[in-house]
Amino acid sequence: MTQQGTLGVAVIGTGKMGADHVRRINDVISGARVAAVVDIDETRAKAVADTADGCQAFTDPAAAMAAPGVDAVLIASPGPAHEAALLSAFERDLPVLCEKPLTPDSASALRVLEAEQRLGHRRVQVGFMRRYDTEFMQLKAVLDGGELGRPLLLHCRHRNASVHSYFTNEMMITDSVVHEMDQSRWLLEQEIAAVTVLKPAPSSLSPEPLSDPQLVIFETTGGAIVNVEIFATCGFGYQVQAEAVCERGTARVGDAHGMLVNRPGTWGGEIAPDFVARFAEAYDREVQSWVNATRRGEVEGPSAWDGYAATAVSEAGIRAQATGGRIAVEMIERPAFYN
Amino acid sequence: MTQQGTLGVAVIGTGKMGADHVRRINDVISGARVAAVVDIDETRAKAVADTADGCQAFTDPAAAMAAPGVDAVLIASPGPAHEAALLSAFERDLPVLCEKPLTPDSASALRVLEAEQRLGHRRVQVGFMRRYDTEFMQLKAVLDGGELGRPLLLHCRHRNASVHSYFTNEMMITDSVVHEMDQSRWLLEQEIAAVTVLKPAPSSLSPEPLSDPQLVIFETTGGAIVNVEIFATCGFGYQVQAEAVCERGTARVGDAHGMLVNRPGTWGGEIAPDFVARFAEAYDREVQSWVNATRRGEVEGPSAWDGYAATAVSEAGIRAQATGGRIAVEMIERPAFYN
Amino acid sequence: MTQQGTLGVAVIGTGKMGADHVRRINDVISGARVAAVVDIDETRAKAVADTADGCQAFTDPAAAMAAPGVDAVLIASPGPAHEAALLSAFERDLPVLCEKPLTPDSASALRVLEAEQRLGHRRVQVGFMRRYDTEFMQLKAVLDGGELGRPLLLHCRHRNASVHSYFTNEMMITDSVVHEMDQSRWLLEQEIAAVTVLKPAPSSLSPEPLSDPQLVIFETTGGAIVNVEIFATCGFGYQVQAEAVCERGTARVGDAHGMLVNRPGTWGGEIAPDFVARFAEAYDREVQSWVNATRRGEVEGPSAWDGYAATAVSEAGIRAQATGGRIAVEMIERPAFYN
Amino acid sequence: MTQQGTLGVAVIGTGKMGADHVRRINDVISGARVAAVVDIDETRAKAVADTADGCQAFTDPAAAMAAPGVDAVLIASPGPAHEAALLSAFERDLPVLCEKPLTPDSASALRVLEAEQRLGHRRVQVGFMRRYDTEFMQLKAVLDGGELGRPLLLHCRHRNASVHSYFTNEMMITDSVVHEMDQSRWLLEQEIAAVTVLKPAPSSLSPEPLSDPQLVIFETTGGAIVNVEIFATCGFGYQVQAEAVCERGTARVGDAHGMLVNRPGTWGGEIAPDFVARFAEAYDREVQSWVNATRRGEVEGPSAWDGYAATAVSEAGIRAQATGGRIAVEMIERPAFYN
Repeated sequence: MTQQGTLGVAVIGTGKMGADHVRRINDVISGARVAAVVDIDETRAKAVADTADGCQAFTDPAAAMAAPGVDAVLIASPGPAHEAALLSAFERDLPVLCEKPLTPDSASALRVLEAEQRLGHRRVQVGFMRRYDTEFMQLKAVLDGGELGRPLLLHCRHRNASVHSYFTNEMMITDSVVHEMDQSRWLLEQEIAAVTVLKPAPSSLSPEPLSDPQLVIFETTGGAIVNVEIFATCGFGYQVQAEAVCERGTARVGDAHGMLVNRPGTWGGEIAPDFVARFAEAYDREVQSWVNATRRGEVEGPSAWDGYAATAVSEAGIRAQATGGRIAVEMIERPAFYN
Repeated sequence: MTQQGTLGVAVIGTGKMGADHVRRINDVISGARVAAVVDIDETRAKAVADTADGCQAFTDPAAAMAAPGVDAVLIASPGPAHEAALLSAFERDLPVLCEKPLTPDSASALRVLEAEQRLGHRRVQVGFMRRYDTEFMQLKAVLDGGELGRPLLLHCRHRNASVHSYFTNEMMITDSVVHEMDQSRWLLEQEIAAVTVLKPAPSSLSPEPLSDPQLVIFETTGGAIVNVEIFATCGFGYQVQAEAVCERGTARVGDAHGMLVNRPGTWGGEIAPDFVARFAEAYDREVQSWVNATRRGEVEGPSAWDGYAATAVSEAGIRAQATGGRIAVEMIERPAFYN
Repeated sequence: MTQQGTLGVAVIGTGKMGADHVRRINDVISGARVAAVVDIDETRAKAVADTADGCQAFTDPAAAMAAPGVDAVLIASPGPAHEAALLSAFERDLPVLCEKPLTPDSASALRVLEAEQRLGHRRVQVGFMRRYDTEFMQLKAVLDGGELGRPLLLHCRHRNASVHSYFTNEMMITDSVVHEMDQSRWLLEQEIAAVTVLKPAPSSLSPEPLSDPQLVIFETTGGAIVNVEIFATCGFGYQVQAEAVCERGTARVGDAHGMLVNRPGTWGGEIAPDFVARFAEAYDREVQSWVNATRRGEVEGPSAWDGYAATAVSEAGIRAQATGGRIAVEMIERPAFYN
Repeated sequence: MTQQGTLGVAVIGTGKMGADHVRRINDVISGARVAAVVDIDETRAKAVADTADGCQAFTDPAAAMAAPGVDAVLIASPGPAHEAALLSAFERDLPVLCEKPLTPDSASALRVLEAEQRLGHRRVQVGFMRRYDTEFMQLKAVLDGGELGRPLLLHCRHRNASVHSYFTNEMMITDSVVHEMDQSRWLLEQEIAAVTVLKPAPSSLSPEPLSDPQLVIFETTGGAIVNVEIFATCGFGYQVQAEAVCERGTARVGDAHGMLVNRPGTWGGEIAPDFVARFAEAYDREVQSWVNATRRGEVEGPSAWDGYAATAVSEAGIRAQATGGRIAVEMIERPAFYN
């Protein structure tokens, strides 16, 4: 496969996220085509397959990966199905873009790490798409540039207008704050050593039994402290902000100023309604970046190790949430393979 | 009169502006007291006099100026009454803070200039209070500092939520844009050489026969170009902005960020309802500054010359408004007395 | 050609703009491939052709258009070469994305209009990429939504850090302000009826004989007034701003807030260095949009009529620049074909 | 004493803060004069006394309070001297504006509370001047207005460019975070129930043995959670920010936009160098407000109870700082006198 060859992608899962990735590969990004789609719901798989030229529908991930023209795999199925799909991809040595979480718990994540190491080369990019957002990339660049000195504190806000009825307290950690876990590790280049979760008296507008918002605190191995406001039902829109406080200055992203309007009595702008609107370009850039690297025969971006770390920190977070105390994160030592 | 003596002020005119200055001297600023108030409406004069300890009410400005304890005069009567009041103050050699306009036309303004010159020393400060606004003072400082080089263009916005029913097209120039005339002369340290007024198809929400908004253009003696949006009935609030475009950068004031609020779908802040709210502190600083200088026996701030210049430019503005063409400003040469 | 077929594009001109479009089609957008490139410099044509799989190099536009696999044409050659290339494309009934200007003067633009009308269907999209910028799209949407009422004034800023040595006063109109011409026509949905150009004393940092900055004023057929600051050598970066003043409010784009940094004594953000950085995503969206429409067999976006109108207004602008007076724009009546 | 009478103030302490208050009463605010100043350094007391007409210098606070013309007391001496000065003022039933802290520890603060209660009426206003800052007053108004619902979280930033060599870790709590203690109690109308202090690895630019910055967390009696970044040596300027996260929206103050400047590569504004610049108008408004209330025979603003509460929370903060754990705040029940 040369740089010029179009990458044939099997998309596993055609729910909201998977269908959006199919649309993205069809209509937005360069160098790839959807060669196969997989869903346990055969009708849905066929409907999505029809949107792409020469695309086949499957109900079995392994069968899809074996189909002609499939060069790479994009996993967008529910988390519990990830491990099996990843191992199938490894059997065929196919590069994978795996939506977060890598797997739902650290035990299964460790099995994926071991399997990938047995391959002898990296195959997995995990879907932490904030690393591909323009503003977060600017923040990373200014931190890496060193002008501001070492980061000492990281203030994060993560606000969602509303959630589905099945959303739980645990999902505030595993679905939402998991982004700040990866973001903190990536920006600071340190592991998270301990987690504490503080719960104010919940908003009266939050559905029972959600305790919303919460303030999650990370201590890192390098001594930085991160605080994350997670507010799953803030009502006013979707907002993600981060401010790194460094020795010589601070840098803040997420204010998201675009058009300013003067209306009677107020000036201001719009708040994005949801993560799809806010991070649309980050998703595009993420998948384009994966396609480009794959066509060059390379693997970049967040690794299976990053996926495992987020899972391990999430487990500590859930315990911290339940106990109210400080919970140390338990992780294996980082394999040299992932350095 | 030493610096420590409290300044006894005669306030001429107790309408909205005059009454506000009485309140300011009573309750806000240091070093002055209202010793006399004047209004042709005796009842109103007495009511306002009652708000200040030892304050007398008059219907005749000259009588008020002759009253014991009167050290200085603040003129807040309608423009046509200014000339007589100024000449009365000159007879007693009293320092004057005169609300804009100095006088309603340049012929009468010239008579005031001549009378003040006969006194042999400056006695008049004209009430162009933007010179005392924190942001405009910052803009002046950055322009004077020279870091940005010579100013080339000045973009101005002047927006009013609504106007009284008696507001006319001419008043858009003489009441509103007159502030930008003084502001431009002060910021650029140049005279205004010509005026052009462009009128778009008026807002359907503006009352007849107002042609609102208008775009007023000044050419200065130093070759700078100033454009002023005057929008007297913009509906959404009071907004004054200015951006100086210089050789090495630009500086903008008037965005007026204070508290930012996230509400459903929007983020933003408040727009001031009117000039009283927007320039409250500038008025305080202006009167305090006048009191302080007067107690030191000095005269500072915008001079009668500045009042005359604004009047002369206003006259050109009204002609430009009527003709649609470019009108050269006619002014006498600046007397050495005002350098 | 179905929606699914990949569009084979012949790119005419491989200078800075053409080469960037080749890169864009190769690496960024979906559904197209570069099938042929044309340049009078054969070596350069071949070097660029080598970046795309199965791409041929030509020195003659007509030959490239006749090559197998060419479905559409992107013209990025210098303006004087546009007319011939457009007519060649019309001979083969190929859809064209033509970089601005459509042609260098209105006489030639009229010939293109006539030729396109003879085809009986639209074939040309002109490269006014601001229509594809997120913030300008938001501004258009808010104006079209009607909440703010009819637009009355449009304030525009167009600032460039620096220019090439061959940049002329005329190019300030034809290369730079031409964007505000199209932008004004598009946002206001009115033609430009007259142009005036005001020249302040030029910046001492601008190279002779450039008179920089300039203030360009448009009057539209609907009675709106547009003012454009064009500052080709402002030194501090690339900045494009626009504020529409409407009957019930205003909307402003171009403040371009992203990451905010606190550094000693100052807070603030970056200014884009040039139009490539500022409008990168608009270019991507423009070409993607053209590819998508073309694959559906449709023609959208700015038409040849828009290209002609910009050229006619530019001609008035150059005369206004030279005379200092108000110049009425001369245009033919809009053919029904372009409604 | 009527509303019109000028208030004679004895200023205790003529260090930086006291001298500034003398200047304020002399030159800025209305309705008061400095009748006496006190300092253990007689020379300094006399020098300051000379700046005010008819002002006497003393070395003994009680003697100054007994001097003719003294109607009220402003205490700006070091904290350990406050208790004695307050009790002296109580003996003469004089109204007092007492700079924070009320007293250095809660035991002495309790003695002041008891003494004031014995008087039978409030006499003390404590100098928490943030309550008089325009932006914080807006934040208080929006929270009290109820539109945003109940406050759930309060994010605070408190950044100082640099500190004196004698500044200690304890002073980060007692001198700096004490402002956020009062601010949180005032904004939320709840007491602080517990304090935790988290210390990241300190900035390498902070002087030993300062552990700077720190993250201080308050839990309130109403279940809100407050986090305070205190960064005493951030280097880039003085910054105080607060964001209240409520059930229906958030409100943020302290971004402090004034003039925006475009300079090569960056746009932005100034950061205030210190609290004097940032809160100048809040100090003016505080003292003016105290003078006005006192002339009306009333006592308003933060009470001795607020002073005691801040001291009690500070004591918990210092223990939390030392232990790293969560420390419950110990306070007496609020006396009905202070409701």
